[in-house]
Amino acid sequence: MKTTKVRFTDPQIELAHGAGGKASRRLIEGLLVPYLENNKLTEMNDAAYVVTDREGQRLAFTADSFVVKPLIFPGGSIGELAINGTVNDLAMAGAKPLALVNTIILEAGLATSELEREVEAMSQAAQRAGVSVVGGDTKVVEHGKADGLFITTAGIGLTDPRVCLSAKNVRPGDQVILSGPIGDHGITVLLARGELELEAELNSDTRPLWPFVATLIEAAAPGLKWLRDPTRGGLATALNELSRDARVAVVLDEEAIPVRPAVRGACEILGLDPLYIANEGQFLAIVSPEYADIALEALRRTPGGENAQRIGEIQEKPERVVLARSQYGGNRVIDMLTGDPLPRIC
Amino acid sequence: MKTTKVRFTDPQIELAHGAGGKASRRLIEGLLVPYLENNKLTEMNDAAYVVTDREGQRLAFTADSFVVKPLIFPGGSIGELAINGTVNDLAMAGAKPLALVNTIILEAGLATSELEREVEAMSQAAQRAGVSVVGGDTKVVEHGKADGLFITTAGIGLTDPRVCLSAKNVRPGDQVILSGPIGDHGITVLLARGELELEAELNSDTRPLWPFVATLIEAAAPGLKWLRDPTRGGLATALNELSRDARVAVVLDEEAIPVRPAVRGACEILGLDPLYIANEGQFLAIVSPEYADIALEALRRTPGGENAQRIGEIQEKPERVVLARSQYGGNRVIDMLTGDPLPRIC
Repeated sequence: MKTTKVRFTDPQIELAHGAGGKASRRLIEGLLVPYLENNKLTEMNDAAYVVTDREGQRLAFTADSFVVKPLIFPGGSIGELAINGTVNDLAMAGAKPLALVNTIILEAGLATSELEREVEAMSQAAQRAGVSVVGGDTKVVEHGKADGLFITTAGIGLTDPRVCLSAKNVRPGDQVILSGPIGDHGITVLLARGELELEAELNSDTRPLWPFVATLIEAAAPGLKWLRDPTRGGLATALNELSRDARVAVVLDEEAIPVRPAVRGACEILGLDPLYIANEGQFLAIVSPEYADIALEALRRTPGGENAQRIGEIQEKPERVVLARSQYGGNRVIDMLTGDPLPRIC
Repeated sequence: MKTTKVRFTDPQIELAHGAGGKASRRLIEGLLVPYLENNKLTEMNDAAYVVTDREGQRLAFTADSFVVKPLIFPGGSIGELAINGTVNDLAMAGAKPLALVNTIILEAGLATSELEREVEAMSQAAQRAGVSVVGGDTKVVEHGKADGLFITTAGIGLTDPRVCLSAKNVRPGDQVILSGPIGDHGITVLLARGELELEAELNSDTRPLWPFVATLIEAAAPGLKWLRDPTRGGLATALNELSRDARVAVVLDEEAIPVRPAVRGACEILGLDPLYIANEGQFLAIVSPEYADIALEALRRTPGGENAQRIGEIQEKPERVVLARSQYGGNRVIDMLTGDPLPRIC
């Protein structure tokens, strides 16, 4: 059975095409993949695998652009995000980050102090993540032709031979583990824009995820099936992609999903669902049932992983659907993100 | 002897900081390297080397952002440039391009047809260069917060073990070879902006350079010392960087440098010097004297390399200086680019 072919018929680009949800997927599948298609791109992971030598060593290779607004927010900034985001794409591919290259697009008129602050943030984040920045490129456009600065970070990492992460390996009965509370990053950035009369004691969760993945590999490599950090589009969109790619149902125990009261409160006021809010320091792991307890314990022992939870399981049917079991017994379908409630979140 | 430490004291970013000349160098050396410094970044090549395994296999790793304006121009477009530019950075590191990852920053309101045209251009350029696009990322910012689209391309390549390219290997007596006429790209893009009442039959020289490098390696690997494509800042800036990094003099025979009449004419009218104009499909090779003829013949045999020329040689003194021998017998000092005569050329 072949996946239905997507056509991209929108006449112009809208913000929603960058939100990571349905519109993004249509743009990528309907316009980018048909031209740039190859086997590696079509599985739509955040990093690609490249075999570099005859012994079959696999390198993970990825790049992400960062356009977050505002440039700084409680708990982080664009520079820190630009390191952690790429480090995390490598980690989600089961790869230890090896080297990064940064490119920066600057707007003429940007204060040097703002640039210096972000370069320093990048340096500190790279040190924290244990990865070297080995090169870069800088472009400048006229004032008004960019928004302060945009950073793109490319990264390569060495994959751990003990794991083979792919949606294709996911089977009914596998368990869904979440590393910690969701929604902190998205709500923090939204509030930092100062457009809403709303305050909360919240910080972005931006952090490097490789230490957690390294722990998981040590403890539970044979049971590790799939990893994903739910950034744009949130947990709901990441799990919808999994359900589609693996042709399974993901059934969530919604009450088990950790959400801080401040995030829940802000979401209620704003009419948002935490399941769709972007994260920059959490991840989802699909683990075979016999390794689920071991994996969860290993995560909880890792500093920063204390709030890891088992939040659901994989079932055979209904195929390509994410369901949440509510506290009253019913099931609700959790769709992918539609539109873009929070543009420029990363 | 240590290089004098550069301090970046400009209070804000100007277009010249992106031009590839003196101001760019101050920004990079004075602000970026001190924070992100490591051995690989400080030699300031366009690609970094990363050792990926115990056998010491060296991978070249690079990324460049592209912000050219207008998006299309005779002979090319931003999409084609974004593939060739990164492929060429790898080639200049002596590396066969292995895989690319593209990230695109789009402005809301961009016509889908414009995006499709550029994605198709990227696809065709990648095929021509024999390299796969293995992944990507798309971000969208509000209308007016970017200028159409910006593309960043990261690339990895496998270095050829027969060559070790570094300014450190350059010695007095080495010959300077240029692959073909200079200035085509910069002047073509400038005229395509339509701001000048000037027309010329010119096309950008954008093309992948790996085939030429592969030919050079086959023919003259033991004599190959250093390669560089003179993009922003032109031939003058590239050779100034070499003279500084290798602590040598580069003495040019200015009349031997091929420049098309249309480029020369436009430069004369506009008060520009072709030596400072950006190229996207030419490169400089420093070759030991005993391999210079072999290298030149090999280049000229390669389709598109017919106009390769020997344009000068390396001398011991004056250290860190580029000189042009004029047709009247005198020498003039060729400095690095100062300011930015042609912003957003790539």
